[in-house]
Amino acid sequence: MGLLEVMRSYSVKVNEFIFKLLSDDFKLKELYDASRHLIKAGGKRVRPFLVIQSCRAVGGDEESVLPAAVAVELIHNFTLIHDDIMDQDDLRRGAPTVHVLWGLPTAILAGDLLFSKAFEALFMCSSHPNISFERLVEAGRRLASAVSTIAEGQALDMSLSGKLKEVLVGEDDYFEMIYKKTAALFKVSCEVGGILGGADSNELNALSKYGEHIGIAFQMKDDILGIMGDEKVLGKPIGSDLREGKCTLILIHALKNASDRQRKTIMDVYGKENISRDEINLVIDVLRDLGSIEYVESIAREQVSLAKKSLEILGSSEAKSLLLDLADFIVARRY
Amino acid sequence: MGLLEVMRSYSVKVNEFIFKLLSDDFKLKELYDASRHLIKAGGKRVRPFLVIQSCRAVGGDEESVLPAAVAVELIHNFTLIHDDIMDQDDLRRGAPTVHVLWGLPTAILAGDLLFSKAFEALFMCSSHPNISFERLVEAGRRLASAVSTIAEGQALDMSLSGKLKEVLVGEDDYFEMIYKKTAALFKVSCEVGGILGGADSNELNALSKYGEHIGIAFQMKDDILGIMGDEKVLGKPIGSDLREGKCTLILIHALKNASDRQRKTIMDVYGKENISRDEINLVIDVLRDLGSIEYVESIAREQVSLAKKSLEILGSSEAKSLLLDLADFIVARRY
Repeated sequence: MGLLEVMRSYSVKVNEFIFKLLSDDFKLKELYDASRHLIKAGGKRVRPFLVIQSCRAVGGDEESVLPAAVAVELIHNFTLIHDDIMDQDDLRRGAPTVHVLWGLPTAILAGDLLFSKAFEALFMCSSHPNISFERLVEAGRRLASAVSTIAEGQALDMSLSGKLKEVLVGEDDYFEMIYKKTAALFKVSCEVGGILGGADSNELNALSKYGEHIGIAFQMKDDILGIMGDEKVLGKPIGSDLREGKCTLILIHALKNASDRQRKTIMDVYGKENISRDEINLVIDVLRDLGSIEYVESIAREQVSLAKKSLEILGSSEAKSLLLDLADFIVARRY
Repeated sequence: MGLLEVMRSYSVKVNEFIFKLLSDDFKLKELYDASRHLIKAGGKRVRPFLVIQSCRAVGGDEESVLPAAVAVELIHNFTLIHDDIMDQDDLRRGAPTVHVLWGLPTAILAGDLLFSKAFEALFMCSSHPNISFERLVEAGRRLASAVSTIAEGQALDMSLSGKLKEVLVGEDDYFEMIYKKTAALFKVSCEVGGILGGADSNELNALSKYGEHIGIAFQMKDDILGIMGDEKVLGKPIGSDLREGKCTLILIHALKNASDRQRKTIMDVYGKENISRDEINLVIDVLRDLGSIEYVESIAREQVSLAKKSLEILGSSEAKSLLLDLADFIVARRY
């Protein structure tokens, strides 16, 4: 089986667990429908896959960490629901976003519910004899801390949005932001899987580094797809990052190297409410001319190499091979 | 020292811990300011007090559960920030609400941050030698589950709001709603304190029942204060429950027993955007004539008796006396 087939087979297990956890009584149907919506709409379940394979890669039992894998996916979906409200995004995974369908109050609450259900799920690992309470507390501690980091990342993202016009945002600011917004959850997914799988400190450190590097690469690839990707495959409108004035390394690089005319082409579109396909194509041409896409792609590939290198200390296993393949997939993917 | 003095002295410790936990770096000042705002604005810290005294009442060490006490207060404040957005409330604890001061995106995020910080705080209990990892996992499991219950309670509250016009909402619906919205957090506060304090199953059961009963009484008293209380002392506008069409037992009782004319007096104000002091006074007169306030007060007092009775199996201690006094305070309070 190839990577994607294996991912799909785990994804089925994760989904089953989630829908059992999120079953409602009839009085609360609306809240639970809203909380299930994005999960039903799709998603690759990369983060649960990281938990499960990190656990297996250190000799742990995949069944024992399934609840923890579910936990990180629920955390991810909780942040998506709330981020879509904050960013006023209407479309995600090819479907209208939760606040569009159920309104603001229910969307806020659906996110909150996924958050608490995530920790409910995590604690379910305690019923498995392989998992010590001490390791479960450590996993929970890191997961809670990662969620705080993600909230900080979203705050940084919002504070940098629209700012490229006035301020020169540095690459450091960008990397700090995407580390917090995206890579922290990838990293903690690997850590949680490793800790619950019985990793020693070297193994845990390797998995943690791996997760951080592929998380950084994942967000950079997301930024590229947000400009160049196929709208139908992605399930969200192209150019929304530009419309929202999001800070990406592509734009940081481009604006640093642009001529006045190139700068104008970009800035005419940056933060603009309605962007046409033609306008986006003009910007893409400029970004290509400046080598900005290639620049970001090369750094993302570098992160993938670092990620793979981090795993060298682990003995070979099917799970390790899957993690190595996943690292390549992160930058090769088209959705 | 009287109850209120003792509560204040614990409140100082809880606040110190919270402000240390919520200290920011300068880039994230806005997010952290927003997350600290309601906590700075006031509050009685009843729920942390429950954690600490429940722990002490079963022979536990108060220092060891301080992080858990902080956790429940952070959960409480996270729900307040999000509820104020959902209910479009502008004032709380005498100050503008978080979304009024910082806008919707930062308010959502500030709530999320308090939620994750709550679990970060809880896990800090693990550094204390008295607390076993097993008990900490059990406390965390119950806290996460309580937060899900609170989200369900807020959903029920919203679904019952404005409904008294068309549907006869039953007392059962009301009690289910306030159990979930309010009493679940009181209950879990006592449980967390008990579990971490080393309670056996009888003691834990007693504390759990106590917390549930005073939680129910607390919300009923809140409903009364929301109509009859002193605006300045309460820190939020009188009549907001009426304006928002909130479902309270007072109204359920009144509408069941009202004449057509009395019903009209109530319904003229129920769900109305701007309510004058005179209009509220007219409604209060009707509620008094119908005995609705007295009815709710008597049920709240009954809950307090049940709460106190639940604690009978605990040996006498200063903490137990404080819990008994607190039960009386819950219905006697004017804010």
